[in-house]
Amino acid sequence: MSRHLPTLHDVYRAHVRIAPMVVQTPLLASADLAEKTGARNVFLKLECLQATGSFKVRGAANKILSLNDAEKKNGVITFSTGNHGRAVAHVAGKTGIHAVVCLSEHVAPYRAEAIRKLGAEVAIKGKSQDEAEENYCRLTAARGHIPVVPFDDPMIIAGQGTIALEILSRLPNADVLLIPLSGGGLLAGMALAAKTINPGIHIVGISIARSPAMLESLKAGRPVEVEENDSVADSLLGGIGHVNRYTLQLVKNHTDEHLVISEAEIKSGMCHIFENHRLIVEGAAAVGVGALVNQRIDVKGKTVVALLSGNSINSNEYISIIRSGRGDAEKQ
Amino acid sequence: MSRHLPTLHDVYRAHVRIAPMVVQTPLLASADLAEKTGARNVFLKLECLQATGSFKVRGAANKILSLNDAEKKNGVITFSTGNHGRAVAHVAGKTGIHAVVCLSEHVAPYRAEAIRKLGAEVAIKGKSQDEAEENYCRLTAARGHIPVVPFDDPMIIAGQGTIALEILSRLPNADVLLIPLSGGGLLAGMALAAKTINPGIHIVGISIARSPAMLESLKAGRPVEVEENDSVADSLLGGIGHVNRYTLQLVKNHTDEHLVISEAEIKSGMCHIFENHRLIVEGAAAVGVGALVNQRIDVKGKTVVALLSGNSINSNEYISIIRSGRGDAEKQ
Repeated sequence: MSRHLPTLHDVYRAHVRIAPMVVQTPLLASADLAEKTGARNVFLKLECLQATGSFKVRGAANKILSLNDAEKKNGVITFSTGNHGRAVAHVAGKTGIHAVVCLSEHVAPYRAEAIRKLGAEVAIKGKSQDEAEENYCRLTAARGHIPVVPFDDPMIIAGQGTIALEILSRLPNADVLLIPLSGGGLLAGMALAAKTINPGIHIVGISIARSPAMLESLKAGRPVEVEENDSVADSLLGGIGHVNRYTLQLVKNHTDEHLVISEAEIKSGMCHIFENHRLIVEGAAAVGVGALVNQRIDVKGKTVVALLSGNSINSNEYISIIRSGRGDAEKQ
Repeated sequence: MSRHLPTLHDVYRAHVRIAPMVVQTPLLASADLAEKTGARNVFLKLECLQATGSFKVRGAANKILSLNDAEKKNGVITFSTGNHGRAVAHVAGKTGIHAVVCLSEHVAPYRAEAIRKLGAEVAIKGKSQDEAEENYCRLTAARGHIPVVPFDDPMIIAGQGTIALEILSRLPNADVLLIPLSGGGLLAGMALAAKTINPGIHIVGISIARSPAMLESLKAGRPVEVEENDSVADSLLGGIGHVNRYTLQLVKNHTDEHLVISEAEIKSGMCHIFENHRLIVEGAAAVGVGALVNQRIDVKGKTVVALLSGNSINSNEYISIIRSGRGDAEKQ
């Protein structure tokens, strides 16, 4: 099989293809974060307001809408920590295509329920994301569905890259992009688009300490499995796949700086976004703001964009995190 | 003094004048509210993402940017339940104009603090909005500042009307607009723009049971004072002014249906927006969704737009409302 690394041109095609299914999400200026960090400007790209509540619908829509009629009839199948599954279920539902979503037992039940509500079949198996992926491989072989993988596919990567197009068409002078990093589809797509338009832009990948699979794989020069621990940023759990064809190389080529962020830093990011921007985001979406408020990165004088990737979080967990973060304020 | 009732043309002028200071806020589709109500579509207009956290910046910007240089040098003065004051302080701060904001003791302290932080002078006096207005009259006479009133001014009304322009340019077939109603500047502006473009559109004004000053005034045919009680929708407290020159007539002319909504209904609207849309709004902003989820209005088969007017609420109060609303869910 030939390997076509996606290009800026593919991202432009995706931009048009997915337009009917996605929201051009707003950029919210944060005077408060600019003041706190000494940045010239800080903007938040609100993919938490995207259809299905996360950016994942971009890649899923680009992949599914590019299938031919015979492929669409076979139905699609995927594995996911939740948000990608929901995105696939959403696009498949809108287009009348059968979808199967494979999840691990680690995925929060409300995420499985959201996927079922959109009309997809949910298959739960295994204790880790890699085991869910094995189940997906078995089912794919047995049933002949078309794979729509979460990150390591040129069409998925190009779809996620449309976020960078939207950012740079509004903010051509953006200096720094803060991007959550797990399987790498999001970072690969955004970075290849942004770097092709402006090679000087500084791309920061933010991994979680609880599951830094991409970082370990970059060190090893090949896909590496890491132990999975529960994280408030559960969307960023998971490996990069046993066979990685695209994202490992693209992330290696296009990332200027890596950060690894703790659970406490993620939670402080969520609290900051609640207090100052009155937005509810999931843990994965708060890593950029978490890095900024904890002085993990020097952005003095820069125009910075942090991606708020999604809003999918259990209500009780969310309230509990915000209340803990506000401990002192509540006692007043 | 001649009385120029604002027109659609004034709203178009405002749209261009205020563009540098305001966000064109998104319309969020709510499949969930459409399903619950039998509506064809329900959209939420997210003025909670507006600069300063509420729609009020539109009117304030239109008024202040239209002043001449001599007027700007005199500084501006206003009275407010909070959001308008913050909007005036924001625009004045951006343009280097001195601003005085008169508040009553009823206004929550965090609102006064937000106004001070933007660089405005805050004058707190009186137990009701009408008393704050009296203080404002005294200070205006004594100091010669230019009045920027919260609602009863053609420029303020035209500024708020730009929200309807944004809605109808995206959704020309909108059938029903759900608009919070207090002093009437928001409803007057939106309704005159919407009705001039489409006389068939159905305008619903939503007043709070705790302070239905406009409704009582419409019944009496003249401005009437009502007793003020604390409300979770504190932005909707306040009278319509002793001398009302514009909004009473415009609201009378352009409103098709009035609803009066209870505290419990407002809170259930806030909880619904939290659970289903992961957005944080203040009480005033939840009256439309509160009316929809409590079956207070028949919207079967219609395309409905509810205005989410702002996000200015104390964190502890917000968390307490959401936790009470989720009582059962949290015990699980």
